[in-house]
Amino acid sequence: MRAISIETGFTKHAEGSALIKMGDTHVLCTATIEDRVPPFIKGSGLGWVTAEYGMLPRATNTRMRREATAGKQGGRTVEIQRLIGRSLRAGVDRVALGERQITVDCDVIQADGGTRCASITGGWVALRLAVNKLMKAGDVISDPMVDPVAAISCGIYAGQPVLDLDYPEDSEAGVDGNFIMTASGQLIEVQMSAEGSTYSRDQMNALMDLAEKGVAELAAAQRAATA
Amino acid sequence: MRAISIETGFTKHAEGSALIKMGDTHVLCTATIEDRVPPFIKGSGLGWVTAEYGMLPRATNTRMRREATAGKQGGRTVEIQRLIGRSLRAGVDRVALGERQITVDCDVIQADGGTRCASITGGWVALRLAVNKLMKAGDVISDPMVDPVAAISCGIYAGQPVLDLDYPEDSEAGVDGNFIMTASGQLIEVQMSAEGSTYSRDQMNALMDLAEKGVAELAAAQRAATA
Amino acid sequence: MRAISIETGFTKHAEGSALIKMGDTHVLCTATIEDRVPPFIKGSGLGWVTAEYGMLPRATNTRMRREATAGKQGGRTVEIQRLIGRSLRAGVDRVALGERQITVDCDVIQADGGTRCASITGGWVALRLAVNKLMKAGDVISDPMVDPVAAISCGIYAGQPVLDLDYPEDSEAGVDGNFIMTASGQLIEVQMSAEGSTYSRDQMNALMDLAEKGVAELAAAQRAATA
Amino acid sequence: MRAISIETGFTKHAEGSALIKMGDTHVLCTATIEDRVPPFIKGSGLGWVTAEYGMLPRATNTRMRREATAGKQGGRTVEIQRLIGRSLRAGVDRVALGERQITVDCDVIQADGGTRCASITGGWVALRLAVNKLMKAGDVISDPMVDPVAAISCGIYAGQPVLDLDYPEDSEAGVDGNFIMTASGQLIEVQMSAEGSTYSRDQMNALMDLAEKGVAELAAAQRAATA
Amino acid sequence: MRAISIETGFTKHAEGSALIKMGDTHVLCTATIEDRVPPFIKGSGLGWVTAEYGMLPRATNTRMRREATAGKQGGRTVEIQRLIGRSLRAGVDRVALGERQITVDCDVIQADGGTRCASITGGWVALRLAVNKLMKAGDVISDPMVDPVAAISCGIYAGQPVLDLDYPEDSEAGVDGNFIMTASGQLIEVQMSAEGSTYSRDQMNALMDLAEKGVAELAAAQRAATA
Amino acid sequence: MRAISIETGFTKHAEGSALIKMGDTHVLCTATIEDRVPPFIKGSGLGWVTAEYGMLPRATNTRMRREATAGKQGGRTVEIQRLIGRSLRAGVDRVALGERQITVDCDVIQADGGTRCASITGGWVALRLAVNKLMKAGDVISDPMVDPVAAISCGIYAGQPVLDLDYPEDSEAGVDGNFIMTASGQLIEVQMSAEGSTYSRDQMNALMDLAEKGVAELAAAQRAATA
Repeated sequence: MRAISIETGFTKHAEGSALIKMGDTHVLCTATIEDRVPPFIKGSGLGWVTAEYGMLPRATNTRMRREATAGKQGGRTVEIQRLIGRSLRAGVDRVALGERQITVDCDVIQADGGTRCASITGGWVALRLAVNKLMKAGDVISDPMVDPVAAISCGIYAGQPVLDLDYPEDSEAGVDGNFIMTASGQLIEVQMSAEGSTYSRDQMNALMDLAEKGVAELAAAQRAATA
Repeated sequence: MRAISIETGFTKHAEGSALIKMGDTHVLCTATIEDRVPPFIKGSGLGWVTAEYGMLPRATNTRMRREATAGKQGGRTVEIQRLIGRSLRAGVDRVALGERQITVDCDVIQADGGTRCASITGGWVALRLAVNKLMKAGDVISDPMVDPVAAISCGIYAGQPVLDLDYPEDSEAGVDGNFIMTASGQLIEVQMSAEGSTYSRDQMNALMDLAEKGVAELAAAQRAATA
Repeated sequence: MRAISIETGFTKHAEGSALIKMGDTHVLCTATIEDRVPPFIKGSGLGWVTAEYGMLPRATNTRMRREATAGKQGGRTVEIQRLIGRSLRAGVDRVALGERQITVDCDVIQADGGTRCASITGGWVALRLAVNKLMKAGDVISDPMVDPVAAISCGIYAGQPVLDLDYPEDSEAGVDGNFIMTASGQLIEVQMSAEGSTYSRDQMNALMDLAEKGVAELAAAQRAATA
Repeated sequence: MRAISIETGFTKHAEGSALIKMGDTHVLCTATIEDRVPPFIKGSGLGWVTAEYGMLPRATNTRMRREATAGKQGGRTVEIQRLIGRSLRAGVDRVALGERQITVDCDVIQADGGTRCASITGGWVALRLAVNKLMKAGDVISDPMVDPVAAISCGIYAGQPVLDLDYPEDSEAGVDGNFIMTASGQLIEVQMSAEGSTYSRDQMNALMDLAEKGVAELAAAQRAATA
Repeated sequence: MRAISIETGFTKHAEGSALIKMGDTHVLCTATIEDRVPPFIKGSGLGWVTAEYGMLPRATNTRMRREATAGKQGGRTVEIQRLIGRSLRAGVDRVALGERQITVDCDVIQADGGTRCASITGGWVALRLAVNKLMKAGDVISDPMVDPVAAISCGIYAGQPVLDLDYPEDSEAGVDGNFIMTASGQLIEVQMSAEGSTYSRDQMNALMDLAEKGVAELAAAQRAATA
Repeated sequence: MRAISIETGFTKHAEGSALIKMGDTHVLCTATIEDRVPPFIKGSGLGWVTAEYGMLPRATNTRMRREATAGKQGGRTVEIQRLIGRSLRAGVDRVALGERQITVDCDVIQADGGTRCASITGGWVALRLAVNKLMKAGDVISDPMVDPVAAISCGIYAGQPVLDLDYPEDSEAGVDGNFIMTASGQLIEVQMSAEGSTYSRDQMNALMDLAEKGVAELAAAQRAATA
């Protein structure tokens, strides 16, 4: 696994913020608290956590077209931000959060593989800091975030199961995916897909063993950053 | 698992077509052969398989806004059609297919849960029929589709692992996902996600056991329809 | 005129539905009842009937781009759905309908010329079934649909007036158009246009004679389907 | 019929231009010659005539939203500009025109009913002037525009057939439409539609009688303007 | 400076209208009064003035694509209409205007350089006429427009400071810009930009001297038109 | 003037990059070299410099909607990126640069007023570093960037001319603008606009005196960062 670094408070306006670095992948995560919730839960007393994802045009090796210029978010972006939102929600007690929305923005400053996993891991930290603020202010009484959420990528590269693929590994891997888990080892989301090949159930199990170890390390880094 | 029915040749223009019914979920799948390929593989000699997905506005219990009116495909649509394309490609030898593109359109006529899985299973049949036509015409010599691809949804509903969820089950399930596999039992894609809860590795294994049985049944239906 | 078939109840969710076949042209029509009306008639006590039209990408001989992907409905689509809505409204007593909206979706499953006329004829059947449901429930007392509405295409093909053109005829015809009429022989809309040629008033009259006969046959099929 | 005025050469850049006034309806028509043709006729030797239509935001009694701001042309605009293009093409010998495109822009400066008919009548004048320029330069030898094209609206207003409806008449008329004809009395397009009512074949004939007289007057005004 | 002409009352529907001609640049300006204001000043008692800008497709030497077809206003259009709105607001006492909005539409009929300046100068006249109507009706008591607003372009062309550039001058000028001023000589907006070169402070001062003279002439023409 | 800091090499992929901080305004600037140029200068031998501008959603005090979600860049964004591109081009000898394009992306990480000026000043540094790389590689022989370009905002706040406004000052200032200049004191662009008020020529001169001092300081910081 690559070196992890989580720097909190990277920007001054957001209720919570963290710059997470997984090797050369750097993602700025900010959490914004708003009093309104989406229409479908208005009046329910439940809170909501959602996420948006973006990449700076030159976060990658060759410049990518800005999505604002293209006129819409691409399919990959939409898929990723839905995954981040779903994953973070799984670690939040929405009753305890109360009827408010927290939006976690994950913007990739520099990309080298695994940006969606870094976004979830770093996004959880930004969310944790924002919720801390709510608890300190007495707006939230019971902690809605008891079990931290982190994510790690895995894949089969050159025939071997590999953890936390960087971009060159990722683009060569015939099978790759993401494991989103809680610090206590429960699963939130598993996505493992083959491109132009297949994999066996044994290989799937080997990857899951690796992922469990990786997530434990990430959870430790989260704990240290938010202590 | 709900009753399966696959009616081939449902429309006359497409190179391959199938109306698949999984209980009350009905999806019309058509396969279109074109001589052009996407720019990124031009001149490579490789073929391409892609998919698009849509729902008729009143396929669902309440009418949904037409995506053509909304001005874009929603995030859910984009996610689904990328999954269908990826899954079908995994079962195709793109060298044997040769430099041509096959587009599989999956349009939901009536929805009752599991539309993306039905699309993959039925889409494979439409693709198979189109490729048969290419082989009959001598345009393709070696069969590029040796191992059939099918998909089944699973979830944890009322505490129990359940196969092939219908809409009421699906909307209540705290954990649900899809297994895309080949008839020979290899995995192509696993997606298992929790909404507002988590699941254990044992539960994951129980679901995978169920899925293996379901896919075997689907593969039999595909075999019968394309015999 | 080509063989007519109207199969009602083709989908289970819609308040009214019909699959109409005019030869190889197959259109699925569904009617959706909603309690809201457009802003410009709110509080007026009047009802509203509107229509939307779409084509599955491979309904035609070569695959057409999905309008949801293109980002908007094309000019032809907009023209057609405005015509369908206008025609159906002409056969509805909006006072008797009461302040509610019925949306008729016409989706072409397979196209072989005359899809807009089939949409109107089949759309009227779906609408009739939905209104029957309202009357059975006692929500509508006086029948708002006394005179059935049907539509037939005509044209001058190879110098001869022709009824109900199929696609090869339609694309060769120098003059073609549509007659929308009631079962009792009143006109609702006449559209007759020449592309790169002109026509005389005598020819116009000959086409209208043909259309009157065609609409009588269609009205009989509608009666049979909704008896 | 309202007073007609056609002022040619209203703008200096266009190859042909005319400001047509039908009472208080004022439309500026310009014709632009380009050497390229649409892809579907490239290399055919045939010419193309197309049209676009727009309204200034305050051409109407209350301000309408600018279509450029709304992000697309509305359904009404698309319908109208397709009609104008089709009508003008019917009066042009595309072989004689040669492989070039002429775009006729019709922009409504002030609206008081009948803007699409004024656009066709005035658009023909702009087109005529542009073609004159091509003939003078020797780029076109045989005149491609032998029979002038004009359009007039008709309707049933207060029970009576009426010619050239202004806006108050038009918005009250239960039946209204447009007749596009050549100066020699041939029909190009008939559109007659009822909104919330129907009409008889006798009424249709009465309207057509009126239209023939109106178009004769318009053709005289076109002749005078382009003499 | 080119010949100025301002014709008021060019269209009948708008509360104020003027066709301004600066040489061969012709812009139709209309002012529309509405009772609603933008959300951000609702209930403040303050009025709002805003502007929109457009060009007819063949206002220019070669035909430009219609923005409604392109699906959005271009960057140049947005820049210009924001400038017009800002400039006109600077000359309006928004308390005296009262809580209403006036939209000034500036549509270029024919372009030959300096369209944004002509829009501001002519737009002020349309606005003045609309406000006159409000004052005559007693809806506005104290005149909100005490100091007229006009605009003139300047640039350095062939090494010399030049006033009111026409299109050939403008496209050759290495430095050009706009001065928006009041009739009493106060500045509202200065924009002076170099393309591929630079300019000195002395040159800037020379241009401002020229502009002061030009605006005085424009203010006289505005006075004459609205007397 | 607020404290200036310029950190070069902030991201690893771009040919040039700089994180500029003007007080609490932080902008990440990257320069991307591409061999292609825009169509209008293809084959001319001239180079091109262009810019794009964006803001992270929570760069500001309250979260702003992501432009990629809104479906287009707002008017303010378009205005700003056109200004940045124009300003940087003014400091580049496009013949010496040769037929290649450099795109400067300016993404605001944290905003506190003056983001467009910081983008120009920092963008010049990123551009300088990218050009250095071209010169080192021998792709460019003669230095195309002889006179550095920097920008500073000015305004009249509480009756006093003020340099380098932060956000609270900027939102209160009745008059504000930007001066873009070269290190040698030549002007590139002046924009000074009043919102709801006016200013005199003397005030304009006082602001320009201030700006000259500010740009000198910025040029020193640029020199230090790129030494």
